Amino acid sequence: MGSDYKLLSGINSPDDLKKLKPDDLELLSVELRQFIIDVVSNNPGHFGASLGVVELTLALHYVFNTPYDRIIWDVGHQAYVHKIITGRRDVFHTNRKYKGISGFPKRDESPYDAFGVGHSSTSISAALGMSIASGLKMEPRQVVAVIGDGALSAGMAFEGLNHGGSLKSNMLVILNDNNIAIDPSVGALKEYLLDFTTSKTYNKLKNEVWDLLGRFEKLGPRTRSVIQKIDNTVKSALLHQSNMFESMGFRYFGPVDGHDVVYLTKVLNDLKNIPGPKLLHCVTVKGKGYSPAEENQTAFHAPGKFNKETGERITANITSATPPRYQDVFGETLVELAEQNKKIVGITPAMASGCSMNLMMEKMPNRTFDVGIAEQHAVTFSAGLAAEGLIPFCNIYSTFMQRAYDQVIHDVALQNLHVIFCLDRGGLVGDDGATHHGAYDIAYLRSIPNITVAAPMNEEELRNMMYTAQLEDIGTISIRYPRGNGVMPNWRRPFQRIEIGKGQVISEGSDIALLTIGHIGNIAANAAAQANREGISVYHADMRFVKPIDTGILKHIGENFNTVITVEDGCLPGGFGSAVLEWLNDNGYPTRVIRLGIPDKFIEHGTQQQLYADCGYDTEHIYQTIISAAQKHGANRG
Amino acid sequence: MGSDYKLLSGINSPDDLKKLKPDDLELLSVELRQFIIDVVSNNPGHFGASLGVVELTLALHYVFNTPYDRIIWDVGHQAYVHKIITGRRDVFHTNRKYKGISGFPKRDESPYDAFGVGHSSTSISAALGMSIASGLKMEPRQVVAVIGDGALSAGMAFEGLNHGGSLKSNMLVILNDNNIAIDPSVGALKEYLLDFTTSKTYNKLKNEVWDLLGRFEKLGPRTRSVIQKIDNTVKSALLHQSNMFESMGFRYFGPVDGHDVVYLTKVLNDLKNIPGPKLLHCVTVKGKGYSPAEENQTAFHAPGKFNKETGERITANITSATPPRYQDVFGETLVELAEQNKKIVGITPAMASGCSMNLMMEKMPNRTFDVGIAEQHAVTFSAGLAAEGLIPFCNIYSTFMQRAYDQVIHDVALQNLHVIFCLDRGGLVGDDGATHHGAYDIAYLRSIPNITVAAPMNEEELRNMMYTAQLEDIGTISIRYPRGNGVMPNWRRPFQRIEIGKGQVISEGSDIALLTIGHIGNIAANAAAQANREGISVYHADMRFVKPIDTGILKHIGENFNTVITVEDGCLPGGFGSAVLEWLNDNGYPTRVIRLGIPDKFIEHGTQQQLYADCGYDTEHIYQTIISAAQKHGANRG
Repeated sequence: MGSDYKLLSGINSPDDLKKLKPDDLELLSVELRQFIIDVVSNNPGHFGASLGVVELTLALHYVFNTPYDRIIWDVGHQAYVHKIITGRRDVFHTNRKYKGISGFPKRDESPYDAFGVGHSSTSISAALGMSIASGLKMEPRQVVAVIGDGALSAGMAFEGLNHGGSLKSNMLVILNDNNIAIDPSVGALKEYLLDFTTSKTYNKLKNEVWDLLGRFEKLGPRTRSVIQKIDNTVKSALLHQSNMFESMGFRYFGPVDGHDVVYLTKVLNDLKNIPGPKLLHCVTVKGKGYSPAEENQTAFHAPGKFNKETGERITANITSATPPRYQDVFGETLVELAEQNKKIVGITPAMASGCSMNLMMEKMPNRTFDVGIAEQHAVTFSAGLAAEGLIPFCNIYSTFMQRAYDQVIHDVALQNLHVIFCLDRGGLVGDDGATHHGAYDIAYLRSIPNITVAAPMNEEELRNMMYTAQLEDIGTISIRYPRGNGVMPNWRRPFQRIEIGKGQVISEGSDIALLTIGHIGNIAANAAAQANREGISVYHADMRFVKPIDTGILKHIGENFNTVITVEDGCLPGGFGSAVLEWLNDNGYPTRVIRLGIPDKFIEHGTQQQLYADCGYDTEHIYQTIISAAQKHGANRG
Repeated sequence: MGSDYKLLSGINSPDDLKKLKPDDLELLSVELRQFIIDVVSNNPGHFGASLGVVELTLALHYVFNTPYDRIIWDVGHQAYVHKIITGRRDVFHTNRKYKGISGFPKRDESPYDAFGVGHSSTSISAALGMSIASGLKMEPRQVVAVIGDGALSAGMAFEGLNHGGSLKSNMLVILNDNNIAIDPSVGALKEYLLDFTTSKTYNKLKNEVWDLLGRFEKLGPRTRSVIQKIDNTVKSALLHQSNMFESMGFRYFGPVDGHDVVYLTKVLNDLKNIPGPKLLHCVTVKGKGYSPAEENQTAFHAPGKFNKETGERITANITSATPPRYQDVFGETLVELAEQNKKIVGITPAMASGCSMNLMMEKMPNRTFDVGIAEQHAVTFSAGLAAEGLIPFCNIYSTFMQRAYDQVIHDVALQNLHVIFCLDRGGLVGDDGATHHGAYDIAYLRSIPNITVAAPMNEEELRNMMYTAQLEDIGTISIRYPRGNGVMPNWRRPFQRIEIGKGQVISEGSDIALLTIGHIGNIAANAAAQANREGISVYHADMRFVKPIDTGILKHIGENFNTVITVEDGCLPGGFGSAVLEWLNDNGYPTRVIRLGIPDKFIEHGTQQQLYADCGYDTEHIYQTIISAAQKHGANRG
C-alpha cells in the first residue's frame, strides 16, 4: 500500500475501523474512494455503486458488530468497500478474475458475507429469515439489509416488506436511494421517493393549511401555537402514519444524507436500540466523489478500464473487421423491424442499455417499455400486449428469466400468445460468475409445451430469426444468444425468412457427427475443421432450434452414425444434448450421444474462454472429443 | 331452468343484462346466488369467492361494453357469475368436469374471457398490457382488472401497480377486499387495508386535531369553519394524497360496499369517464348470502359437495381402511418431527390449509410462517432461516414453485443451504386443469446443481424422506408428492432413515424392466403384477430419487435389459425418463428407454384417473406397454 492510504493501510478488519474516531472516517472515505478508483480503473468491475456507499459502509461496520451482526447487500455490486475493509484489501485487485475474489458477496468467501447475492431484491427476505432465526435462537443479533431504490421495484422486495412489517421482528432496511439502477430508475415508486425526498406533498399540504389559517386574521399568539401543533400533527401523519413504508408496518426514518458519515454513525447507533422493523431512507449519489462517474452514471455503472485522471474510458480498438456484440445486433435489428412493422413493441425489465433496447427507446419511446426491475411483470405485460394483437419483443437476460418462469408457462405459452422472448447473456457470461451464468434456459424452456426454442449461431441468424418471428403469429418463441461478440464483421445483410424447426448443415462428413446449438457452433466448427485436416470427416449441423428439433437431421444421424457429439453453452441435465438423445432413443436409433456442455455444478467466474475450457467445450476439448470418438467408435454405419 | 330463475333464465349475454333496470339487478343477484348454490352443491367447485362478487360482476357487465371492453379476473375462481351471464349458464353444471367448461376464465372458451388465469396476481400486468395496446391502436377500450386483497400480496401485483402508475394509461383496478384468500389474508398490507376500511388512522388524526382545537375556547363560529376546512384538508391528504395506491400513481376511490349493486353501477359509470390509472376499493364478504359459507370461509372456499339446505358438507365415507391424503401425512409428520427437532420451522405461501401445515401452525405458531401469496419471498426467507442454522420445511405446490424458480437456484441451491422443499400437488392435479398441473418440477429442478430431487411412492416413504432430510445438513432437497390419497391406511410407522440416492426394488424380474418415480409407482406395480400373471417377468424399482439417481440400479438395467420402461407423473421433455436415458447413454449402455409421462402439450381438466389414461400412464397403458415391449424386444440380455 502506498503512502496515499495512511488510514486504509491499517484497516484489516472492522475491529481496526472501530479504533478510529468518527471524524477519521471522513478521511478514510477519501482514501477508499481513491483506492477503488486506482484498482477498478485497471481491473474492470462495477464502479459507481460502490463509490455511492463508501460512507454508509463505513458507518455500518463502525456501529454494528459484524460478522455477528449481519449485513446483507442487495445485488452486491456495491459491496466493494465492504470487501476491502473486511480483510480483502490486498486481494481486491483479483476481483472478478479467474480464481480471484467474486464481484459479489459470497458466503464461502468471508464470514462477513452474510448472504450470497447477485440478482436483485433478495435482501429483505433473507434478512427477515435471519432475524426470525436469531429471535428463535434467543441471539440478540442485529440484521441489516441494504437495498437500492431500483431493486425495490421488484415484487420480491415488496413481498419481504409486507411479511416483515407484520412480524414485528427486529430488522433494519436501509434504502439506498440514488434514483438509478443501471439505467435510471423507473416506475411510480421512484416518483414517490423523489417527491418524498423533496417533501413536495408535505409542503403542498402545509402551505394549504397555512393559507387557510393565515386568512383568519384575529388569531393571537396562542392560536399560532395551536397552528404549530396542527402543523406538527399533519406532518407526523403525512411523513409517518401514512408513509408508504409505515403502511407496511416499518417505522420510517429519514431521509438522511448518505454521505455524512459522522451523522450516519449517530443515526445507526440510535436505530440499533429501536425494536421492530425499521427503514432508514438514505439519499446517496451514484459515483460520488468521482465527477466523470457522477456525470455519466449509466456508463460508469461498470465502465471497463478507464484513465483515472481524465475519466476517459479505454475501449478496445474497434475496426471495421471487429464483429459486433450480439446485443447490438439485437438492438439495431429491432429498430429496423419496428420501423417496418408497426405492431412491434419492445419490453425490457431494467436492461435497456444492457440489451441495447435503448436504441429503440430513443427512436420510438411510445412503443418501448423499460418496466424497471420486474421480470414477472415484464412477461405478463407482454402477454397482455400480445393478447391485443401487438407483437412484443421482450428482452431479458437468461439468468433473470428464471424470475419469470411461471409467467412464461402460465401467461404466455399456455395461451400460445405471440410473444418473442430474446434471451441475452445465454450461456456462461464470464466475470459476473455463478449468479449470472445463463446456464439453465434451454433446459427449463424446452420442457414447456408450445414454445419454439431457438439459438442463432451468428449475427445473420439472429437477425433472420428475429425477422421470421414477427412475420406472422407463430405463437411463443425464445431466441437466446450469448454475452459478447459475434463472428461477422459484415453482418448487416438483407433479411431472409428461415424455416422454424430446421437446422443448417455446416459441413458434410461421414466419420463422426457434430450437432451444435447457438454461437458455440463457431467454436465447434473450428474444432471440426482441425479434425478434418487430420483426415477425419466431420458432419456438422447448426441445429438452430432446440424445439421443434430438426427431425430430418436427427434421422440422418440415426441412420448413418454410431456416435454424435452435441455441443451447447448450457447445462447438460435436460439440455439440448438431452433433447437429441430423447429423439434418437424414442425413434429407435442406437446412436450414442456424447454431450458437451455445462456440467452439473455451479461455475465460478473467469473469462468466457477460460470457463469454456474448464467445462470441456472450447476448441481443444471439442477437437479431442472428435478424435477420441472417431478412434473408439469407428466410422459411420453407412 | 326452473321458475325460480325468472330473470336469470332470460340472461344469455350481457346485452340481455343491459335491458334490465338497475333495481332488477338486486333480484337477479338473489337468483344468481341460488343458481350457484344449486349447481355447486352438487358439482364441486370454488364457491365462496363467486358468492362474494355477484353484485360486482353484474355491475361490471351492466356498465361496461364487454367483450369489447376487457374484464380480467385475477385467479379466476371467482368468475362463475361472469361465466353464467356470458352464455355459459346451461353448461355451468359441466364446470371443472372432463371436457366440460374450465373452472377458470380461458381465452379459447369465450370471447368474454379476455385473459386466461389460474395463478394469482397476474391481472394488473395483463390489463396494463391490454390498455397500452388499445392506446397504441387508438381503440377507446376500457380495461378492468379485478383482484383480491390476498392476490395483492404477491410481488407481481406490486410490479404491475408500480409500472401502471407511472404510465398514466387508462385502466381500472378493482380491489375486491374480503380480507381472506383461501386462508385469512396475512401481511402488513392486510392490516393497512383493514385500518383503511375502518378509517382508524383518519379517525385518530381527526380526534387529535379536534382535541387540540377544542381546548382553544375563544374560537367563534368562523373558527369552526376554518377547522372544518383543516379537517377536510387533512382528510383529503390522508385518504388521497398519501394513500398507498395514490403513492403508486393510481387515483384511489372508495371504500365502497361491494354488495350494493345499484350504487356500484353508478360508481363504475362515473369512473368510466375518468382518465388514467384508477383503483376502486370494494369491500365484499366471501360467501355472501349463504350463511354457512360466510361463517366458515376457509371450508367453503371449495367445499366439495354439500347439502344446500343445511350447509353440511358431504364427505366420502372415510373408514380406517381409507388411505390418508398425502398432504395430511405431510402435515402430521411435520408436527411429529418438529416436536423432536427444535430447529425445524415451517414456511408456506398461503397454502397452510391446502398443504396441512395448519396443523403445525396451531401447535407451534411461533415456528410456522404463512407468508401470504408470495412464493419468491417464501423461498428466500427460508434461505435466510437456513443460513442461521434452522431447518426450514418450505411447502409450495409444484405449480406455484414455478414462481420461485430463480430463488431456488440463486438463493438456496447455489449456497447449498439446508432447505427442505415439499412440493405438494406434483403431477396431474385433476379438476383445476392446465394452469394447476404440477407437470414441470422434476424437469426444472433436476437441471439445478446441488439439489436432491426426491419423490416418495407412498406415505411411509414420504415420512421417511422427511425424517431423513432433517437428520443432518444434506444441503437442498425437494420432496414431491401428488394431490390426493396415498395407498397405506396404516401409515403411522416408526421413522427409518433412508439412503439418499438409493431406490428400492419392488419386484425382481428378468424379461422387462420398469423404473418409476413417486406415487405413480403404485399404478405401475399393478400393471407389473398383471403382466406377471401373463407370464412376463417384470423387474420393478421405485427409484425414490431423480437426483442423485441410483446408479447401481441403472447399471443393473444397462447390463441386463434391452428395454426399460420409465413411468413418471411429470413432463417427458427433460424429466425423470430423460435422466435415466442420459445416464445409460453416458455410461455406454444401449438399453432402449420407453418413457411414459405427461406428453409435450398442456393437459386440460378431468379426474386424475381420466387424465392418466389420456396421457398413457394408467394401469392399462402401462400394462400394454410392458406386453408390447416384451414381445418386440424379447427377453433380457443376461
